Amino acid sequence: MSRGIERQALATVERRQPLAGEPVARACVVGASGFAGALTAALLWEHPQISLEAVTARTDAGRSLDELYPRHRVPLELEPFDAERLGAVADVALVSYPHGAAAPAVAQLRALGLRVVDLSADFRLHDVAAHERWYGAHGAPDLRSESVFGLTELHRAEIARADLVASPGCFSTAAILGLAPLARQGAIADAVVDAKSGVSGAGREANDRTHFVSVDENVSAYAVDGHRHAPEIDQELAALGLAQPVTFVPHLLPLDQGLLATCYVTPSRELGAGEVMEIFQDAYDGEPFIELASTPPGVRDVRDTNICRIHATTGPGGRVLVFAAIDNLWKGAAGQAVQNLNLMLGLDESEGLR
Amino acid sequence: MSRGIERQALATVERRQPLAGEPVARACVVGASGFAGALTAALLWEHPQISLEAVTARTDAGRSLDELYPRHRVPLELEPFDAERLGAVADVALVSYPHGAAAPAVAQLRALGLRVVDLSADFRLHDVAAHERWYGAHGAPDLRSESVFGLTELHRAEIARADLVASPGCFSTAAILGLAPLARQGAIADAVVDAKSGVSGAGREANDRTHFVSVDENVSAYAVDGHRHAPEIDQELAALGLAQPVTFVPHLLPLDQGLLATCYVTPSRELGAGEVMEIFQDAYDGEPFIELASTPPGVRDVRDTNICRIHATTGPGGRVLVFAAIDNLWKGAAGQAVQNLNLMLGLDESEGLR
Amino acid sequence: MSRGIERQALATVERRQPLAGEPVARACVVGASGFAGALTAALLWEHPQISLEAVTARTDAGRSLDELYPRHRVPLELEPFDAERLGAVADVALVSYPHGAAAPAVAQLRALGLRVVDLSADFRLHDVAAHERWYGAHGAPDLRSESVFGLTELHRAEIARADLVASPGCFSTAAILGLAPLARQGAIADAVVDAKSGVSGAGREANDRTHFVSVDENVSAYAVDGHRHAPEIDQELAALGLAQPVTFVPHLLPLDQGLLATCYVTPSRELGAGEVMEIFQDAYDGEPFIELASTPPGVRDVRDTNICRIHATTGPGGRVLVFAAIDNLWKGAAGQAVQNLNLMLGLDESEGLR
Amino acid sequence: MSRGIERQALATVERRQPLAGEPVARACVVGASGFAGALTAALLWEHPQISLEAVTARTDAGRSLDELYPRHRVPLELEPFDAERLGAVADVALVSYPHGAAAPAVAQLRALGLRVVDLSADFRLHDVAAHERWYGAHGAPDLRSESVFGLTELHRAEIARADLVASPGCFSTAAILGLAPLARQGAIADAVVDAKSGVSGAGREANDRTHFVSVDENVSAYAVDGHRHAPEIDQELAALGLAQPVTFVPHLLPLDQGLLATCYVTPSRELGAGEVMEIFQDAYDGEPFIELASTPPGVRDVRDTNICRIHATTGPGGRVLVFAAIDNLWKGAAGQAVQNLNLMLGLDESEGLR
Repeated sequence: MSRGIERQALATVERRQPLAGEPVARACVVGASGFAGALTAALLWEHPQISLEAVTARTDAGRSLDELYPRHRVPLELEPFDAERLGAVADVALVSYPHGAAAPAVAQLRALGLRVVDLSADFRLHDVAAHERWYGAHGAPDLRSESVFGLTELHRAEIARADLVASPGCFSTAAILGLAPLARQGAIADAVVDAKSGVSGAGREANDRTHFVSVDENVSAYAVDGHRHAPEIDQELAALGLAQPVTFVPHLLPLDQGLLATCYVTPSRELGAGEVMEIFQDAYDGEPFIELASTPPGVRDVRDTNICRIHATTGPGGRVLVFAAIDNLWKGAAGQAVQNLNLMLGLDESEGLR
Repeated sequence: MSRGIERQALATVERRQPLAGEPVARACVVGASGFAGALTAALLWEHPQISLEAVTARTDAGRSLDELYPRHRVPLELEPFDAERLGAVADVALVSYPHGAAAPAVAQLRALGLRVVDLSADFRLHDVAAHERWYGAHGAPDLRSESVFGLTELHRAEIARADLVASPGCFSTAAILGLAPLARQGAIADAVVDAKSGVSGAGREANDRTHFVSVDENVSAYAVDGHRHAPEIDQELAALGLAQPVTFVPHLLPLDQGLLATCYVTPSRELGAGEVMEIFQDAYDGEPFIELASTPPGVRDVRDTNICRIHATTGPGGRVLVFAAIDNLWKGAAGQAVQNLNLMLGLDESEGLR
Repeated sequence: MSRGIERQALATVERRQPLAGEPVARACVVGASGFAGALTAALLWEHPQISLEAVTARTDAGRSLDELYPRHRVPLELEPFDAERLGAVADVALVSYPHGAAAPAVAQLRALGLRVVDLSADFRLHDVAAHERWYGAHGAPDLRSESVFGLTELHRAEIARADLVASPGCFSTAAILGLAPLARQGAIADAVVDAKSGVSGAGREANDRTHFVSVDENVSAYAVDGHRHAPEIDQELAALGLAQPVTFVPHLLPLDQGLLATCYVTPSRELGAGEVMEIFQDAYDGEPFIELASTPPGVRDVRDTNICRIHATTGPGGRVLVFAAIDNLWKGAAGQAVQNLNLMLGLDESEGLR
Repeated sequence: MSRGIERQALATVERRQPLAGEPVARACVVGASGFAGALTAALLWEHPQISLEAVTARTDAGRSLDELYPRHRVPLELEPFDAERLGAVADVALVSYPHGAAAPAVAQLRALGLRVVDLSADFRLHDVAAHERWYGAHGAPDLRSESVFGLTELHRAEIARADLVASPGCFSTAAILGLAPLARQGAIADAVVDAKSGVSGAGREANDRTHFVSVDENVSAYAVDGHRHAPEIDQELAALGLAQPVTFVPHLLPLDQGLLATCYVTPSRELGAGEVMEIFQDAYDGEPFIELASTPPGVRDVRDTNICRIHATTGPGGRVLVFAAIDNLWKGAAGQAVQNLNLMLGLDESEGLR
């Protein structure tokens, strides 16, 4: 059968890759019309051991994912959110709603027994005051205690047994992966993170900021008086022993997918370049999605992969420099969500991500 | 005084370049918050013989042009449209409203005696049926007879004495300039125009089509069943003797400003490359804004200029190939509007455009 | 084990995906340092049924593919070309040398019994005069008769039993796939192909044309007096019954991967849009890598896939419009080469390409 | 007369804008085939009070600037370097040779009495050891003592009376302008400069790094173990009282022209955002090419201008943040060179730069 779009409406939709036997779990993606949600759906659609049963959207219900994202080739129709129906067809849910909108949906799904990976910020911050400062009152405070921060490399064991995982933001993922090995060693006296993000990180909403003409041939910083990913970074590094907050400034770049975090660390003790590299090698030994490089990574090196590529060294004057590159939609969102889901289901965490 | 933005609110706003003596005319720009209107305002702000007295906007009134377009450095506040006030401060108006919205505003300004250059499509088409097909009922039918189609190189004399000039669209400008010399010679049996436009041609409206992520690393055709610039092209070429319509297909490209019209002409008689070049040299001899090039032009060659750069030759099989490059915001909109205004005011048509 | 680059030198290199049992064939890529060759190597490296045994390069021998193309993650070292050694380790060779350089290498490999897919132009043209006009004297004339033109959808059966397949150029692939259904019906009176290509199509050579500053914010036509892909297009369409050559003009666009062929066909008889679509559906029914779309395709829709996405319709005035989008490095080069290799080896032609 | 290229060879070349009376000086540009040299020539070609008499190039002699840079519209032929001839036709020379090549040419021109603005690094560093470390042995050591560092805003008076001005690098210009006001106040305890540059900053040389495919959709740091602009920054800030070197890391961005320096300053005393802004307003009061903005600047805001646009504020935790945006080819090279030349000739320093 031709894969002609004209005919797809008539044809029985079929996965490109058949599942390898009975699926380990049936999944749904809630909020699949945004960039991260759509990629999550695409990854699950091709996943060898998980079946994707439903995709929902708030504003695009009734349209097919294929129409919104031809490149993903997921011929499912977006449904309005209906927790009961999702509970009937799925065991796990990946929620990719905007901050604030996610919590109530997650609460309904959890009440029906679904295990959830939430890609929003709603369950990331442990500190109530910090959450309220950046996001307002919480929509499902009772669930906060059961949620686990989903930066896989830091919380693998808890993620595996969690029922609710809060996948971190793209900036947080790169910054934390770039600084965690040093924080754990107590080696950071002070840190600056200069982050550079592609436009897909700003989401699918069309506005003055995401208009092609605003971004093309341009670069600028934004949110310089504080970005809401900063408390995630500080929360996780504090847990590793870093007392003070990092300075974090995001910049918007004229590219689609990709995020580079350039980290400037004043070390708490003198460190040579070799010693720095060793700290990172020890920290990330065996990690399937961490690549240590001998030169500064470009975001092209990790485009459309779940890999975080890191170069750590010392610069003139003894400052430690760490460069961490990810694809903001993969390791910074959808890819990490699937990585976490794999862990929760007892699968190889790389399943469906290579 | 520092040019600090903080202080500009307090300072008396001053033109960067003082006028050369008494202005020849006082101008206003109606609809200055869009890309074309804002550039029109910027060109007039620096114009040596015209003073810019007011800028208006429908949705951004109260904001300054400097805030919306820092790069233009026009520190005027956008006002709501008030024909009486504009009539009091200005002699001429450049109207850059969306199609349909322009006609009523133009009618009010004309009633107050202002001479008008309209950048919309509202007064471009002579044929009522064609206009209604593409744009609906006309908002100021009485004014249609007095309007002149503002492709400067074709209608210079009429423009000079007109009170209402309808500046053509960006696609029309490039296509007509690329085909007119051949049409006038009766040399066209059949013509295809494959047009490639930067995103600023799609306007300032933020939507799925203008989102950076939609355009970046992409190219596609649109409006393949007919684009509303096509009747302008056909109208003007018909007046030069071309009996049949051209096939015109626009494409959107991942760049900001620039438009390339690739014209494929089946000649009505055999033409050598030298003969083709001669036809163009004769047609455009002395034109200040037409450049004939010996190789295919790139849109970079004309970026931020009012120039149309053309290469005309023959390809394998005797087909005539014409490549016409313009900056869609300059020669395709604001630049040509000012060129027309200069003519209307008896000025050198290049004034303020070099 | 961490995938750290520092350590890779010490580690035994391992495929990310283990082969599914004994490989069906052992392959080598000759000329793997260019864009097409490197992607060919990357596709074979992950291929489930073919093992990649060696990669060669003329100027970068001694360096690893991982160093040149971190994104491909193929940790093999580039070797100098040594036919004997390749003959010892491989059954099939994919040759991605520049035109002219390929023929002698192919001759040596064929003499040793390897079956070859050649990505150069050296064996594409049946007509000696045409070949010599565009490429000069042929380097291995004896092999010409055994070579099969590797546009899979047109020559599937011959490719399957061939020992030497000449994979077509990127422009030819898109243009022929866009026009073949109509040519076969005798429906083309005259055709223009306006092609728009990303910069990777111009190859890895750094020169004035491929410098970022030359391409960025630019678009222009080139080779307007004849492009060497034109005779491939004409050869294949002539075989389907089209008597006269098409007019073909390539344009360079500010994007990386992607090629759009916009085809303007004067039909030899009146055709409705529905009839046109039907012709394409019949022609491509069951094709795994042809997608028929109801709207004009963007090159983003096929980026990093082996798919050719086509929209065929009629425009105003009865002209037939066909838009064919491919990734120039995939279906336009490496992907199609692997598709052909799969056929030669009796595998599902989609193997390793999804 | 048409501006047709075909005919230009026959026509007497004329400036677009006639000079305003007798020129104040006759200039030549040595090394006009690179990006910075070509723009310098273009600025002087349109300069109202300086006549451009000759342009030279090492490898492109015999070609016209119009052929290399159609967009600049300077129809002069590039000559081989001949100091005697330049001494006969010009009073001043702007030298835009690569580092190392400039010094001998400057020495010859100075010996003939021409006043020189040198855009290379050859005369920037006062410290011999630092120069030799980064650039090797000096080619004209006798001239070092007479050279003045050409960051206009810092050395206006010395530049005005200098015979040899060493215009600073693009990174240095942005970094120094961003940090000088704080350094002068003794307010910097420690500083990091994360710089983001467009590709034109890497020069016209076509290589792997400047290939479109390397840069597109990418961002990465380079020269992380030390960049040769760093000693310029340190030299100038040391003169203002900053004892220790700054950490400076450049990044390459997928854009053409533009440079953003993001400066992270640990202040030596607590500073509020208002106090920071005040320091910058006092420092740059009356500066014609410094713009203080109330939000972070984008490089688009200064494209094709000689303006440095700065936003200075405090971030969370009391760190001072300074964002300085320039066009690397204008304020970072050619524009600043002309600004300096204007000063040397007693002209308004903005002449020809608005």
